Amino acid sequence: MASAAELYSELTQKLTTTATLASVSAVLGWDEQTYMPHGGAEHRANQLGMLAGMIHEHATTPRVGELLDELSGSEYTKSPDSPEAANIREAQRDYTRATKLPRRLVEELSRVTTLGQHAWIDARKASDFSKFQPWLEKIVKLKREEAETVGYGSGVPYDALLDEFEPGSTAAEITSLFTPLRDALVPLIAKIRESGKVAPVEILERSFPIDAQRSFSKYASQKIGFSYEEGRLDEAAHPFCSGFGPGDCRLTTRYNFHHFPGAFFGTLHESGHGIYEQGLPKGAFGTPLGSAASLGIHESQSRLWENFVGRGRAFWNHFYPTAQAMFAESLGTTRFDDFYWAINDVRPSFIRVEADEATYNLHIMLRFELEQPLVAGTLQPADVPGVWNETFTRYFGITPPNDAQGCLQDIHWSFGGIGYFPTYTLGNMFAAQFYEAAARDLGDLPGLIAKGEFAPLKNWLNEKIHTHGKRYRAQRLAEMVTGHKLSHEPLVKHLQGKYSELYGI
Amino acid sequence: MASAAELYSELTQKLTTTATLASVSAVLGWDEQTYMPHGGAEHRANQLGMLAGMIHEHATTPRVGELLDELSGSEYTKSPDSPEAANIREAQRDYTRATKLPRRLVEELSRVTTLGQHAWIDARKASDFSKFQPWLEKIVKLKREEAETVGYGSGVPYDALLDEFEPGSTAAEITSLFTPLRDALVPLIAKIRESGKVAPVEILERSFPIDAQRSFSKYASQKIGFSYEEGRLDEAAHPFCSGFGPGDCRLTTRYNFHHFPGAFFGTLHESGHGIYEQGLPKGAFGTPLGSAASLGIHESQSRLWENFVGRGRAFWNHFYPTAQAMFAESLGTTRFDDFYWAINDVRPSFIRVEADEATYNLHIMLRFELEQPLVAGTLQPADVPGVWNETFTRYFGITPPNDAQGCLQDIHWSFGGIGYFPTYTLGNMFAAQFYEAAARDLGDLPGLIAKGEFAPLKNWLNEKIHTHGKRYRAQRLAEMVTGHKLSHEPLVKHLQGKYSELYGI
Repeated sequence: MASAAELYSELTQKLTTTATLASVSAVLGWDEQTYMPHGGAEHRANQLGMLAGMIHEHATTPRVGELLDELSGSEYTKSPDSPEAANIREAQRDYTRATKLPRRLVEELSRVTTLGQHAWIDARKASDFSKFQPWLEKIVKLKREEAETVGYGSGVPYDALLDEFEPGSTAAEITSLFTPLRDALVPLIAKIRESGKVAPVEILERSFPIDAQRSFSKYASQKIGFSYEEGRLDEAAHPFCSGFGPGDCRLTTRYNFHHFPGAFFGTLHESGHGIYEQGLPKGAFGTPLGSAASLGIHESQSRLWENFVGRGRAFWNHFYPTAQAMFAESLGTTRFDDFYWAINDVRPSFIRVEADEATYNLHIMLRFELEQPLVAGTLQPADVPGVWNETFTRYFGITPPNDAQGCLQDIHWSFGGIGYFPTYTLGNMFAAQFYEAAARDLGDLPGLIAKGEFAPLKNWLNEKIHTHGKRYRAQRLAEMVTGHKLSHEPLVKHLQGKYSELYGI
Repeated sequence: MASAAELYSELTQKLTTTATLASVSAVLGWDEQTYMPHGGAEHRANQLGMLAGMIHEHATTPRVGELLDELSGSEYTKSPDSPEAANIREAQRDYTRATKLPRRLVEELSRVTTLGQHAWIDARKASDFSKFQPWLEKIVKLKREEAETVGYGSGVPYDALLDEFEPGSTAAEITSLFTPLRDALVPLIAKIRESGKVAPVEILERSFPIDAQRSFSKYASQKIGFSYEEGRLDEAAHPFCSGFGPGDCRLTTRYNFHHFPGAFFGTLHESGHGIYEQGLPKGAFGTPLGSAASLGIHESQSRLWENFVGRGRAFWNHFYPTAQAMFAESLGTTRFDDFYWAINDVRPSFIRVEADEATYNLHIMLRFELEQPLVAGTLQPADVPGVWNETFTRYFGITPPNDAQGCLQDIHWSFGGIGYFPTYTLGNMFAAQFYEAAARDLGDLPGLIAKGEFAPLKNWLNEKIHTHGKRYRAQRLAEMVTGHKLSHEPLVKHLQGKYSELYGI
């Protein structure tokens, strides 16, 4: 008879092998988005499809099920919050989900979404939804099949997809968080519009030499705590962060000579993800304890650095002199207050990733509103552009002039990320709540930031959040760290505070 | 009973899966050399070690042996030169070799050589052989174990390693080719030295802005036929070419502001490899027919473009005006004849990859002379620096001032490439013989090159060599294409012709 320790050790070895294989796939995915020549797309799809099948095979090997069965009644699960119990709990969850999916479906999803991403790139470039529609049809069909196969106790197929990105979450729960947020945001945005005040955004559309943007973004990202000894920053059409494993985390961004915020805040955002990845316990790589808690928690880390830190006064008290020196032609004589207002401009716009902190959440609610009927089968892919534009007009009072600025703007559906979008607004809510708690714990947080001292906040996040990996579920983690259940209130308070000062409302 | 067609189809599918997995490993290897941050080394070693084990498992799965057994007496092997027979023959060779190697040895070699490469980088930087010696000891021990396990009919363990890179080749055969070459080269090099003429190499050490070098190298590489739709050019400390599979081939080079030839001829060289990779039949990917014939043939393609084309008068008749315009400060008023002589300078030097066409082969012979006793166990790794310097002095009349310019200069041993070096001089011999045949078949080849018309030569190579993959063994292929057995004579004739004109000897 093998001891529980032997069984547990065998389990973690098996999980680590699967994770190592997944990390190989991550390298190929990164290369595909950054450096791969056009001609390599088909072979890359074959490589990734094969790896997806192998990962699935490893994740579902019956031996893992046996080990989990044997361990379920062992001493390791007696104390449910112990590291071992948490690893067993989350491994069981992953195993149960994975064993329900047949290898054929996993490989097909990988193949279709790899090719679908290329189709999406071409469709967006041509602003021609018809080039992407057949792929969206295939993807929705496969994701619906995934939902049916995985199952959903709630009666709502969409919940089965949500659960992949935000374990334990449901559409009903998200609706109950989003509704009061929307009810607070809509009048706030209306008041800003009615104030008649317009931020001097032309400041940010002057000349910002790419090389200087690259240096400055990298400098700031390093300064807040992303390690370039264990990471990189490259360029990609759709910026992302990919943690390959201990000691190697890749960020990407995109530069626009006449748009300062895109690359700069994009880099801060991805750095927040990267600092989380770099803060996960290295020795636990491959097990749930070495993995991020959820996408919502992941997003909270990127939003916290991008918005709560990076779009704050204190941050620019520290960085603005450097920015003025590096972009002397465009910012040399620009007043601090004008720059600060420009980076906090609020106005309806078409592109989610360029949206301000307030309207951003409406972009997410729109996608959440479309994805649910798409998965339920009550909205057809062919009708997406029409419904998108109609809903957009209702939310924002403006209509996208074309699909590139409408329903083709995001990569997510093309990679099968249906149920992914809500995690962005969950991330904003988590971020607000974490930032509020950090400010309470660390004393004068704006004072530290204004002096360029980011280590206290980074260390606080490392200790309170990163080091736990998946030990606690997202909402429980938030409650433990902040003392409160997740709520829309800290986010609303943050936005009201910032904008009442800027817009005098 | 499965038909022979069904068995053959199953075999090629199995081979393609193994090759796809190997191509995944190639992506990770490329990333490791080009973009990976320092901190990623250990996890990358784990990833590559795991993949090496999986590739080995796929390559040695007993089903492949069964399929080969059943196919060996089938209709497919009746005509031994048919594509199917060639695939079966080479698959059998690979299977036999692979099944002899235990997975433990394969994984250990992968792990040790991945870490060994990092140790080599540090050792070379510090010019401190002691940092690399323990790794070389481990690697030689493992390679010796590999030789013993694979076996060698000849009684010479080194032959077992050679055979991996140049199928069917032996140390005795290589010695019989190298000896007359050395007997011709030594007096040729002596005559050049005795001529008292010294090429104006300072021309190439002027200022060559990196951006212009990058553009010019890429331009020339594209012009001779490397497709950037299906490939890239990046930077790496030790330049290489890696074909990932159909439609994706990566070249690397390194730039030095004060040394024009390094990046330029390096890029032409790697482009030659890349044109071969891009010329392999796409539909045969994964099978021997879709793979390069041997490393010697591979090297013949790089040498042909680098030296026979790229260091020729005709090539610069076409490119020199562009080079003068792009590097106006350094070449604007430099005479064609001086530039041409400078790029064809012959003199003893320490670094193999910077050596001229004539002395280069002596660098290879030195390595061939050291590797044999290293594998036989009559030379200890600890004694390598001493024996290297002694042999070098005997060959070149000068002594390396340190190990970075001596026995630490090459990456090969650190990745386990013992038995690899001889393929470089074999490549020079193949290249000379192919170029002579192409010139005979194409009529006025220098005339075409001088007009910038490279397609006839590229198409000739595609048709005569690339399209066959591994259908014919290297020496047989050379004999079929050129009408002659492989010999040192075309290479000697080429060098004598070029240098008698330049040095008046």
